[in-house]
This record gives sequence, C-alpha cells and structure tokens, in this order.
Amino acid sequence: MNDKPLILITNDDGIYAPGVSYLAEYVADMADVIIVCPDRPQSGMSSAITVGSPLKVTAHPDRGAARVFSVSGTPVDCVKIAMHNIVPRKPDMILSGINHGSNSGTAITYSGTMGAVLEGCMIGIPSIGFSLLHHSLKADFSMSKPFIREIVSTALANPLPYYTCLNVNIPALIAPKGIRACRAARGHWSEEYSRYVDPSGAPFYWLTGQFVNDEPQAKDTDEYWLSEGYISVVPVTPDQTIYPSIPELAAKYDK
Amino acid sequence: MNDKPLILITNDDGIYAPGVSYLAEYVADMADVIIVCPDRPQSGMSSAITVGSPLKVTAHPDRGAARVFSVSGTPVDCVKIAMHNIVPRKPDMILSGINHGSNSGTAITYSGTMGAVLEGCMIGIPSIGFSLLHHSLKADFSMSKPFIREIVSTALANPLPYYTCLNVNIPALIAPKGIRACRAARGHWSEEYSRYVDPSGAPFYWLTGQFVNDEPQAKDTDEYWLSEGYISVVPVTPDQTIYPSIPELAAKYDK
Repeated sequence: MNDKPLILITNDDGIYAPGVSYLAEYVADMADVIIVCPDRPQSGMSSAITVGSPLKVTAHPDRGAARVFSVSGTPVDCVKIAMHNIVPRKPDMILSGINHGSNSGTAITYSGTMGAVLEGCMIGIPSIGFSLLHHSLKADFSMSKPFIREIVSTALANPLPYYTCLNVNIPALIAPKGIRACRAARGHWSEEYSRYVDPSGAPFYWLTGQFVNDEPQAKDTDEYWLSEGYISVVPVTPDQTIYPSIPELAAKYDK
Repeated sequence: MNDKPLILITNDDGIYAPGVSYLAEYVADMADVIIVCPDRPQSGMSSAITVGSPLKVTAHPDRGAARVFSVSGTPVDCVKIAMHNIVPRKPDMILSGINHGSNSGTAITYSGTMGAVLEGCMIGIPSIGFSLLHHSLKADFSMSKPFIREIVSTALANPLPYYTCLNVNIPALIAPKGIRACRAARGHWSEEYSRYVDPSGAPFYWLTGQFVNDEPQAKDTDEYWLSEGYISVVPVTPDQTIYPSIPELAAKYDK
C-alpha cells in the first residue's frame, strides 16, 4: 500500500455533498484516498479554525476503497485533525472540492474550499482546490472528469513549488474548451442584505450580495477565461506579503 | 461633521474586549469614529462570512464620541453590514484590533482581525490591523499608543495603494524600540490536539497548536523584528495570485 501516493480529500460543502465523492472517484486509481470533510456545510468559512470549542471525529462507511471521516468543524480543522489523527503517513497531495459553486476572483478569501488548500500548502503538501460553477447539489460534474484527472496527475508527477497551491474553477453545463493558467480577477462582494423583522419587532439581516468583478475588461483573469468556457487554474500563495511595497513603507515608518 | 475623516473600527475579540476601546481612544482626535464589532469573541475566524443564517445588529452606549454597535457574526460580517447599514458616509479608513494576541507570520490566514482588514482593502478603503503580543484581557496597551497614532496619521495623510493593507504587530511588556516594515515569516501551526473522552466514552479533541516559524534564521521577517523589540508593519494583499508562476503553469496546462 505504501508505494502508492496518498491523497487527502476535503471540502467545505460537507461530507454528504456529491462533489467530494466525485472527486474521490476521479482520482481513485491514482492513489490511496482518505476523505475527511466537515460534518455539515461550511461555505464561506475561509481559513477559520475552531479555537474555543472541541471537535468530534466520526467514521463513515468507505466509499470505494476510500476511508471516510467527518469532523465537527471547518475545512481547515479537517486538514489539521486529519494530519494529526487520521492519515497513516504524510499525504502526497491534498485536494478540496469539488465545490458546488464558483470560487473565482479574489473572493476566494471567503472560500472554505480554498481555506483547506492554503492550509495544506502552508504545511508543505501540494494542494489543489476544485470548484464547479453550479450551486446545485444535483449539478453534473461528469464533463470535468478528464480535466481534473489531468491536473492532478500532472501535479503528482511535478510537485508544486513551496508555498504554491492551485485554485481550479470549472465552467458548468458545457464541455470545457480547455485549461488556462491565469490570475484571480480582483473584485469584491457587493454589500447587500435583505432586511426582515423578527416576531418581537427587531430587525435582522441576511447576506444576499454578489461577487462584483472590478476588472470586467481584463482578458487575463479567471473570470474572463471561465466566461469563455475554459477551466481556470490560478497559482495561489498563503503568503500575502506585498514584497515590492516593503521599501516604500520602510521609508515612511522605519526609525 | 463631514469634513473630518471617518474611521470604522472593528476587531475579532468582540465588542467587550478592551483592545478595541483603546484603539478608538487613541485615534479619537483624528477622525469621527464608529465601532462595529462581533458580539462575542471570533478569534480564528479568518475571512469567514455568515451565509446561511441571519445577523442581528445591536446599538451600545457611546464610547467617548464614538457610536458603538455589535453584530452577531464574524469580523468580515461586521465590515459588510457596517458599510451597508451603519456608516453615514464611506469611511476613510478601517482599523481592526487592537487584538489581544499576535497575528504575525503567515498565520494571519487564520486571523479574524486581519480578515476584517482584507475585507476593507478589497472594497477600496485603506485598512490596518493592530495586534499586541499578549493574550490577556488585562494587557497593558499604553506603550503602543504613540506608535499607533503615528501609523494611522501617516496612512491618513498618504493613502495606501490599491489592494494594499497593513498588518501591524506590537511587542508586549516593553516600550517598542521603533517600527520596521518587513515581510511575514512563513510558518504553520503545529497540528496538536489535546484528546479527551466524553461521558459516553467517545473521544473529542481541542486545538492546542503553536505557530511554528519555518524561517527562524531570517532577519527580515515580522517574527524577527518583534523578537528584537520592534513593531512590525507588513504590507498585505487580498490578491493571493502568484503572478510569476502563471507562465510555467500555462506551459504545463494550457491547450
């Protein structure tokens, strides 16, 4: 068993979301696979960790040859506790997804799918997140299969550099035209909230915002290539330092 | 009132943590101040947003001239709902903190303090996070005051560039020797969990890990300058794309 690569798979839609089972199935012949996912949906949890309360780990029935566990926490909690308590050896790769919905542009800062990927990257394991641009739990993932297999097998054969991970988004409802390496479109969520009134007369609010692409004219972003029917692959780092800005800041502040 | 700058202040330790009141007090003469914080501690919440449940907003007594609100959500929720429902005009700056505890190195990926800062940056508002390297709610913030005032007044006078925000960490228990602009030390949390057994006999786990500096020899990181008694200022971006890696990835994948 130990001469096969080991792939740890997680997600942010939770252990019962179909996307994670498809991902495990697509790579099952390339590696030993262990699935460790949140026990409930964790969309929008970013890189959150559970610091003030305990975590429970639950074993589930195998899926194919993959062992399956759920964790009562976030996607990053899943990676951490899997590394500490579940995996029999250091994984060769961590995959996250397939997310039900897009994680493109700089809105990946909110993504639990990508939180798990950034965590894997920080602990030195090649890590890739996959997201399909369709929110339905009944979404058709089948056309993504050959592309996901190619991206994973290429990364297994050519490990990603230190502090580099990949954010892969996949167009829905069409056969992707191909793959494009590109940058994240810069954008933001529009601050929209639906307002309600509770039975006591007090207001409450529910987030309804949309990701707004601040660079709609740019032709080198993930948003652009996805709109053209391609799969986008963005190299991403957990190190958010802006190195070129340090000298200018030093001139202002150092003393 | 409208000719003064407006500063929105949030944190991740919650509305009753002393650090946020000190921060508001330190900048009170520079701007109109509005405080919008989580209604309870949100440490480790990163850039998490509340997508599946509602948010409540509660007005609190003024602190000095500052209006004060709490939100039943994350630090990023606080920024979003403040922008949508609370601020009378677009803030000139968003400040987060003063965090009770460090947010140095690449472990800022987990930081709710910095989640709020990155959110402010993405919506085009100069944003700065402050953290004191002391976890106690009784920590002494007083020696940080002149440095925080200098950093805020400099940034008000010279707005930070697009997609650039600042992560400021402050040594505790000493008078800081000065300020150093620098990069984030690359590191990771060691995966440590304390294991317990619940009354039914099932195990549960509690995160106890420590941030491990993977570059202990480097003399240009925030970890280094903090250890030397300086305040660290790291320029940070919400755009995690590794631009130089795109051509190499394109050679592997584009077709």
